[in-house]
Amino acid sequence: MTSQPRLSERAIRIPASPIRKLVPFALEAKKRGTHVYHLNIGQPDLATIPAGLEALHKYKTEVVSYGLSQGDQDLTAALIKYYGKLGHQFKPSDIVVTTGGSEAIYFAMMAISDRDEEFIIPEPFYTNYNGFAITSGVNLVPITTSPEDGYRCPTVEQFEEKITERTRGIIVNSPGNPTGAVYTREEMERVAALAHKHNLYVISDEVYREFAFDGLKTTSILDIEGMEERAIVIDSISKRYSACGARIGCVISRNEKLMEAILRYAQARLCPPALGQIIATAAYNDESNYIEESRVEYQRRRDVVFGRISKVEGAVASKPEGAFYAMVKIPVDDVEKFAKWLLTDFQLDGRTVMIAPGPGFYATPGLGIQEIRIAYVLNCDELEQAMDVLVAGISTYNKR
Amino acid sequence: MTSQPRLSERAIRIPASPIRKLVPFALEAKKRGTHVYHLNIGQPDLATIPAGLEALHKYKTEVVSYGLSQGDQDLTAALIKYYGKLGHQFKPSDIVVTTGGSEAIYFAMMAISDRDEEFIIPEPFYTNYNGFAITSGVNLVPITTSPEDGYRCPTVEQFEEKITERTRGIIVNSPGNPTGAVYTREEMERVAALAHKHNLYVISDEVYREFAFDGLKTTSILDIEGMEERAIVIDSISKRYSACGARIGCVISRNEKLMEAILRYAQARLCPPALGQIIATAAYNDESNYIEESRVEYQRRRDVVFGRISKVEGAVASKPEGAFYAMVKIPVDDVEKFAKWLLTDFQLDGRTVMIAPGPGFYATPGLGIQEIRIAYVLNCDELEQAMDVLVAGISTYNKR
Repeated sequence: MTSQPRLSERAIRIPASPIRKLVPFALEAKKRGTHVYHLNIGQPDLATIPAGLEALHKYKTEVVSYGLSQGDQDLTAALIKYYGKLGHQFKPSDIVVTTGGSEAIYFAMMAISDRDEEFIIPEPFYTNYNGFAITSGVNLVPITTSPEDGYRCPTVEQFEEKITERTRGIIVNSPGNPTGAVYTREEMERVAALAHKHNLYVISDEVYREFAFDGLKTTSILDIEGMEERAIVIDSISKRYSACGARIGCVISRNEKLMEAILRYAQARLCPPALGQIIATAAYNDESNYIEESRVEYQRRRDVVFGRISKVEGAVASKPEGAFYAMVKIPVDDVEKFAKWLLTDFQLDGRTVMIAPGPGFYATPGLGIQEIRIAYVLNCDELEQAMDVLVAGISTYNKR
Repeated sequence: MTSQPRLSERAIRIPASPIRKLVPFALEAKKRGTHVYHLNIGQPDLATIPAGLEALHKYKTEVVSYGLSQGDQDLTAALIKYYGKLGHQFKPSDIVVTTGGSEAIYFAMMAISDRDEEFIIPEPFYTNYNGFAITSGVNLVPITTSPEDGYRCPTVEQFEEKITERTRGIIVNSPGNPTGAVYTREEMERVAALAHKHNLYVISDEVYREFAFDGLKTTSILDIEGMEERAIVIDSISKRYSACGARIGCVISRNEKLMEAILRYAQARLCPPALGQIIATAAYNDESNYIEESRVEYQRRRDVVFGRISKVEGAVASKPEGAFYAMVKIPVDDVEKFAKWLLTDFQLDGRTVMIAPGPGFYATPGLGIQEIRIAYVLNCDELEQAMDVLVAGISTYNKR
């Protein structure tokens, strides 16, 4: 007997959020009176879709009661309408509404993989996939892509090198966080063909679907014929309608057995949040130009960020094609040190900047040590100023 | 290669909600024009706490943004105030706000147990623990309690018979769903002493804390001295404030390492729902008699239900001491058949009743076959009518 019972092995393994670990240094900088430009998190500054907030304000109920485990019927109908406009016909049982895209990823992983099985994923990738993989007891097998090649989709050979008996699926995320890369139809077809050949699922995280720039069209895994039994789409209102706190996402597939299993996971947690669903339903029924206006704004910001960072001597940046991130290789020795130094030792006219260090987006240890992710979640004026600070910071850091 | 990739083993094992499986028969009964009294689910009919709904209606924001993974600071402060009134002093890091009590249970299990480890739990118990256990890959080891003994806490010997090297904790739920039993201080101390002796955690689900009848005081695991490192409390606003759809709960412990691990799980899913937290904060800051009025109302209903069911010839019922359920042994051959028959073959003046069959609350196969759970979530007049129907149903069923 000891004085304190132990934690689980899996609890010890689950990582702290790598994006959030610089927070104490940012708080100290603010205490010293330094203004901190936050380019470190994917929290849009854009106003939540007005139709969503209006619906919330008009919402009257006596009892905020449990809803259906698969999501409220009104929201499911609105989702079917939204997807119909994109050219995809669904029936209600193809959709389970989730508590954020987070839960959608988790349900998908749990439904198709057992402990010690594997998902192949191009890196750098969205940090939180790691947490869900550890929680689910599965392994993410990364294929490294690089700033020099624009973080493009890996080749068939690169994928096949990683496919084993334990592989259950491939995870793709286009437009991508943190890379900003938008996979071409040929690239999505490549992934689909691999899934067919090796009997795999494809989990396709498409939460940034509409945010593609310069007239580029995104290709959904749903656009690829013959993928009915293999395609699992992760979606969310968080970024599309700037409603991250509502915690509403969904998981979609035409594989009936799969959706029946996901529904059982959904029943275990009873139902998704009622109030977030009010916002989501109004958002998906909205006929305004909200999404297109957001896209245009993000493209403008992309131009500001890319225009500035690509001119830094020694930086390697490919023009982001979508989402609202730029992943950039910068000429510093170690971005972890640099990101911390920006908060603890640097200021330009009383201002500094917080960025997300690259290593947090790689599963392979040691990678990303010269890369940073810039989230363009400030308006263009502020972004210009933040980029002034960042560019000056790189220069000052290297002259220390 | 097959035409459809397989599901995971764990997905195949996760059960459909046993409470929800009668739903299609209820829908058919309603289509025939039969009125169905719903005594089958723990969805209170009481109005959500007015202060919570008012706060929601007054809530103005530009952006429904991500909050802290551990929950909004205002809510944590309100929780500390609420617990302070109960005599428990907490600091913010002792509390992680969760997406319903469901997530609190899940985080607790994940943080202290690995696959194939065990939790001991008196049965009958809240159905959904099963789903979380399967999701977490752990086993629930039941100790059977019975209607004849009032579903009291098992003895030291009964617990010790089940404790093995793999046991990580004991799960208690007082006031209990489905039993309505309220554990005495001596019973809670018994559980605590076992935890000390065998180096275990105690997960104490206290969501019905205030709903105890006839002046009975509930004992929290937090009331037992020396349990700082072992006690994990599961809490929720769902029943206390009739806000099940808000999906706000919390997990509380003074074990710092444990809470640090739970916070990392919380970071993986980003944050709890923002809008539910608005309701919860106002609810916990509320000074009205809402909770006490709810308690009085549930006690009145308990009297109606118990008064009627205990007079049925051959029924075994002990007076529920808390929560809003009665678990009763009734004189029928098989409650699964009976519950279905009530919906498909029975009506009294165009009305029937939906109840939750006992077997869904037992982990041991074959148990509960003569027990039903009655949730008293209708007002007293409706409950009287529902009990007329149920009592007539038992009699008619046995005369077929």
